[in-house]
Amino acid sequence: MGYVILIYDIPDDRVRYRVAERCKDYGLERIQYSAFAGDLDRNRREELMLRLKKTLGKKPGNIRLQPVCTRDLSLAKEVSVDG
Amino acid sequence: MGYVILIYDIPDDRVRYRVAERCKDYGLERIQYSAFAGDLDRNRREELMLRLKKTLGKKPGNIRLQPVCTRDLSLAKEVSVDG
Repeated sequence: MGYVILIYDIPDDRVRYRVAERCKDYGLERIQYSAFAGDLDRNRREELMLRLKKTLGKKPGNIRLQPVCTRDLSLAKEVSVDG
Repeated sequence: MGYVILIYDIPDDRVRYRVAERCKDYGLERIQYSAFAGDLDRNRREELMLRLKKTLGKKPGNIRLQPVCTRDLSLAKEVSVDG
């Protein structure tokens, strides 16, 4: 398996919602409003991105899936203030 | 040096703007509405996150800086449709 971060910029609310739901279907967890993360093996990454490509269709948007190795994950930094 | 992806979720427009400006000050490039990326060495990462912590102050928000090694960067996947 391997940890991935998936971020997206999608103006259309309906498409953005469906992309988020698809990420949940693949077991990813929401880490920010337009960002999900979790473990996905290579096949599942390919499969998810193909599906998201279909979900996006011709609507404008950008979706990035970034694998992150354990070492890099340990170097992550976060600042968080609850609302 | 090392490549980093910095993503943020900040409801307050003014704070979000200042965080974006700070990222540009550190030479990062905007890759999505609330995401920047670029090369930053360890000291600069520390420095940037300390500054962003001050910029955020007590306002609600989440800022994540994720280092990404060259190998992982080569495994990234992207779907993009221009608007």
